[in-house]
Amino acid sequence: MTHGTAPLPSDLAIAQAARPRPVTEIAAAAGIAADRLEPYGRFVAKVDPRPDEVSTPEEATERKHARGVRYVVVTALTPTPLGEGKTATAVGLAQGMAATGRSAALTLRQPSMGPTFGIKGGAAGAGYAQLLPMDKLNLHLTGDFHAVTAAHNLLAAMIDNHLHHGNTLGLDVRSITWRRVLDVNDRALRTVVVGLGDHQDGVPRQTGFDITAASEVMVILSLATSFADLRRRLGRIVVGSTYDGEPVSAEDLRSAGSMAVLLQDAFQPNLLQTLEATPALVHAGPFGNIATGNSSVVADYVAMAHADYVITEAGFGADMGLERLVNVKARASGLTPDAAVLVTTVRALKTHSGRYTVRPGKALPAEMLQENPGDVEAGAANLLHHLAIARSFGISPVVAINAFPGDHPSEHEAIRRIARATGAEVAVCTAVSEGGAGAAELADAVAAACEHPAGYTPTYGLTESLEDKLTAVATRVYGADGLEITPAAEHQLARYEELGYGGLPVVIAKTHLSTTADPARKGAPTGWSLPVRELRAAVGAGYLYAICGTMRTMPGLGTSPAAERIGVDDDGRVTGLF
Amino acid sequence: MTHGTAPLPSDLAIAQAARPRPVTEIAAAAGIAADRLEPYGRFVAKVDPRPDEVSTPEEATERKHARGVRYVVVTALTPTPLGEGKTATAVGLAQGMAATGRSAALTLRQPSMGPTFGIKGGAAGAGYAQLLPMDKLNLHLTGDFHAVTAAHNLLAAMIDNHLHHGNTLGLDVRSITWRRVLDVNDRALRTVVVGLGDHQDGVPRQTGFDITAASEVMVILSLATSFADLRRRLGRIVVGSTYDGEPVSAEDLRSAGSMAVLLQDAFQPNLLQTLEATPALVHAGPFGNIATGNSSVVADYVAMAHADYVITEAGFGADMGLERLVNVKARASGLTPDAAVLVTTVRALKTHSGRYTVRPGKALPAEMLQENPGDVEAGAANLLHHLAIARSFGISPVVAINAFPGDHPSEHEAIRRIARATGAEVAVCTAVSEGGAGAAELADAVAAACEHPAGYTPTYGLTESLEDKLTAVATRVYGADGLEITPAAEHQLARYEELGYGGLPVVIAKTHLSTTADPARKGAPTGWSLPVRELRAAVGAGYLYAICGTMRTMPGLGTSPAAERIGVDDDGRVTGLF
Repeated sequence: MTHGTAPLPSDLAIAQAARPRPVTEIAAAAGIAADRLEPYGRFVAKVDPRPDEVSTPEEATERKHARGVRYVVVTALTPTPLGEGKTATAVGLAQGMAATGRSAALTLRQPSMGPTFGIKGGAAGAGYAQLLPMDKLNLHLTGDFHAVTAAHNLLAAMIDNHLHHGNTLGLDVRSITWRRVLDVNDRALRTVVVGLGDHQDGVPRQTGFDITAASEVMVILSLATSFADLRRRLGRIVVGSTYDGEPVSAEDLRSAGSMAVLLQDAFQPNLLQTLEATPALVHAGPFGNIATGNSSVVADYVAMAHADYVITEAGFGADMGLERLVNVKARASGLTPDAAVLVTTVRALKTHSGRYTVRPGKALPAEMLQENPGDVEAGAANLLHHLAIARSFGISPVVAINAFPGDHPSEHEAIRRIARATGAEVAVCTAVSEGGAGAAELADAVAAACEHPAGYTPTYGLTESLEDKLTAVATRVYGADGLEITPAAEHQLARYEELGYGGLPVVIAKTHLSTTADPARKGAPTGWSLPVRELRAAVGAGYLYAICGTMRTMPGLGTSPAAERIGVDDDGRVTGLF
Repeated sequence: MTHGTAPLPSDLAIAQAARPRPVTEIAAAAGIAADRLEPYGRFVAKVDPRPDEVSTPEEATERKHARGVRYVVVTALTPTPLGEGKTATAVGLAQGMAATGRSAALTLRQPSMGPTFGIKGGAAGAGYAQLLPMDKLNLHLTGDFHAVTAAHNLLAAMIDNHLHHGNTLGLDVRSITWRRVLDVNDRALRTVVVGLGDHQDGVPRQTGFDITAASEVMVILSLATSFADLRRRLGRIVVGSTYDGEPVSAEDLRSAGSMAVLLQDAFQPNLLQTLEATPALVHAGPFGNIATGNSSVVADYVAMAHADYVITEAGFGADMGLERLVNVKARASGLTPDAAVLVTTVRALKTHSGRYTVRPGKALPAEMLQENPGDVEAGAANLLHHLAIARSFGISPVVAINAFPGDHPSEHEAIRRIARATGAEVAVCTAVSEGGAGAAELADAVAAACEHPAGYTPTYGLTESLEDKLTAVATRVYGADGLEITPAAEHQLARYEELGYGGLPVVIAKTHLSTTADPARKGAPTGWSLPVRELRAAVGAGYLYAICGTMRTMPGLGTSPAAERIGVDDDGRVTGLF
């Protein structure tokens, strides 16, 4: 599909002008039997995972090899606050694979509804590299986020109800870490006191709400390899401890069965399509900062049975989502990537030169738009660092230059030089303006890279100590000299080892705007230590996470939120969304 | 369908053994075109209301007469805390209409998920008079409740965000009546303080959460005659007032467009089926105590175009849901009932004798199960009162004796005598044990009653003063001598008249366990006054409501909530639900 040189219509205009195919046709073309579909309208369906698709990581590894499926993860260099078009590139690559005669399926996270009504912008891709139906995708879709909200908050209600009715488990009220969640940007809910009123209204205590994407239940949904595994993980959720210091779980509170019932439909991935009718399984949406930031294992499992190339996206840069895919998700799923696409833009590399500052919601500085391959070269360190990260995992990197209308050929050439000097494949991707045809070069490069997988290498072994695992990520992935752990965090590390959580992998919650813990530091800084302020356990999801810097788990709305402009016109069409 | 004399299987066993027909077949049989369906799985579909179905109350009235459709509302005498099987009777009646060769459609409220995990029991009917699919019905269904939650809480976030960003409207923080909602029984959320934390975390203030069914957005969903009407009503929601006393609306906060977008799918009624494949439109679920307690207008509109008998259910007794149907819903919809079915049980009449006390979750007192028509006669006053209420509205009442296995024929005979003495039709209904065949007598009685409609008579005119409207309901419906209004409520009445809300109808929020405001008073007490403690405005929904007695808008969980027993078995079937 080529759309000439006319200015690109808006994302909304392109999406609303598109004529998606019935989801039954998309499924049929992918070989998904009709009796496995639960349609939600004509263009979205839940896919019931077959028993031979969901099982154990070992079996999944075997199946992947037996079928010769290539698993490709789309990641990025350290992005600017505007994002570098990772979803658009993933969508474009899937379209490009199909356009070059290959069979491909996408697996992507579902966007969170809170930000849709906050900062204008969704996560459906862009231009001619978008998912359909775009409005459903960015709103309720099939209600999975609502189901996560309901399951999460049922457990919260069971906790407070337990306290109210005599607290026979001896749950120490001060130890409770289980908050509530809502899929809305609502800063006033970050810290609340509940249980006020009279003696029938519960036990007063301070707690708060996170956005639903930050729920441990969401991560469990994304990591579960089968419904039985989901049920077990829910039971293992630790909500706090007794006065004697013993962990109290969702199973102890007899809540996990009901939570599983609430998640029964949500466990099935959602089948959507790209603008060029490539199948896309959109499922789960764990918050990139504190969680795994990757779409679901079960969606990968289903996709793997129906395509030769499974293309997934990992949140933020290779230091963030890709690291978690390698060290957490792949361990749960048994699926290791054959290639990693590093989405790169001229504006991001210019930003990493340290010469410009990009602010969300503001236009780029005018001087950044001038032709200046020297600025691009000056930001090379960040791209080189991310290439090295991918290689440290044993994954072949492919640099995708996500082309913007104002880019200059000399600047693209600079990126090619930087990438090729390391031996990486590189391709310009114009899928946003041209659809799959604009990603043909990228598709070929990715296919070539998949033929030379270096072999999966996690950053640490699970038997290493928790502190050694954190150190391994900090030094081998981020390029830090080591850790700077607060005494409180040291104490927590020791406590978690004692409780038997020492064998879990770790997630490091830090900013995505730098390879360091300081969002202002661009490029690829060295000579720094990672400050570990606090440790937390997500026992149900199956990892510990270290808080480095301030992490907001409930966004706020701005002075002029998108919600003020979104509406429905007289023909029932959504307006103001994008 | 006759199922002999063997003991009845459990509701869950009956529902799980049933083989529902594909929803496309249910729709086709009802003459609903396939292109109007948005399937949600194979057994549930949203029905897109046709433009000629949704319009104005006047047009709806005309269409009803032109088509000769009969509108039948199922209500009850004052129930015990166990409920008297109103939904089962409504389902049975629809099945009975079909069994006797008539074309019927049901319109029912969607059950609230909170109580599903609280006190065991759902709202799908019972035995062989149930709706399918029962598990979906009692869980997320198509996500309408979640959409209401999202729209409601988006407005709440916009309010707190407005306060945070400088409060240019001058909204008086102490005046804010808009709370938040969740579809969970969570007593600890009844009273909360939000906005704690640091200066980026909003403005601290006390507020609380209601259950989603108690949201004004839910009532708006149930009363809207078209999507455009829904949008307008959302804009009219009043959330509080300025420091100058001017009302502040959702429109002022520029939130109503986004709320409408969130409700776009929810506006379409959900098509389900009875065990005997009668079409059932399940839509909206306003809380009976403080709201209208009736299913949606748009579902009635759609049903009316596809059946000769539209059977709906109004919450609680004739003093509650039926009064609101007559004085609020019918004014919005233009549809007035031709007959009212008063569901009556032996146990309820025995309770109204004042000789027994029935407690929720406990077995009935053994002596109540003895054959004793005298006890039934002693409770007659309550039934007679409800018959009189129905007649005061100009509706022909039909007494339905919902038969229980332990009932004695002499007791049924006593109820027949009481009813017939007033000239009312009466029929025993055994639909729970026998399906539609057990409701054939009732179906014939209802059809007969529909041939003699007495003519719609609301309790008050809209131009009467607010106080006169309250007095009219208290004296003419409840049988009180008059009102006992607190000075604060008097002040609010005057204030609402001044603000121009005087032309709205009223809803009286009182207990459903007595015709008085005291749940302990059974029978049909006279010589009492209705205590009006407080007035509130639901301007978007379009009524004022008077709080009489303590009204909980957020239920709690008990010491042993159903959530502890609900789960999923190895075959993926829900267990412990009912």
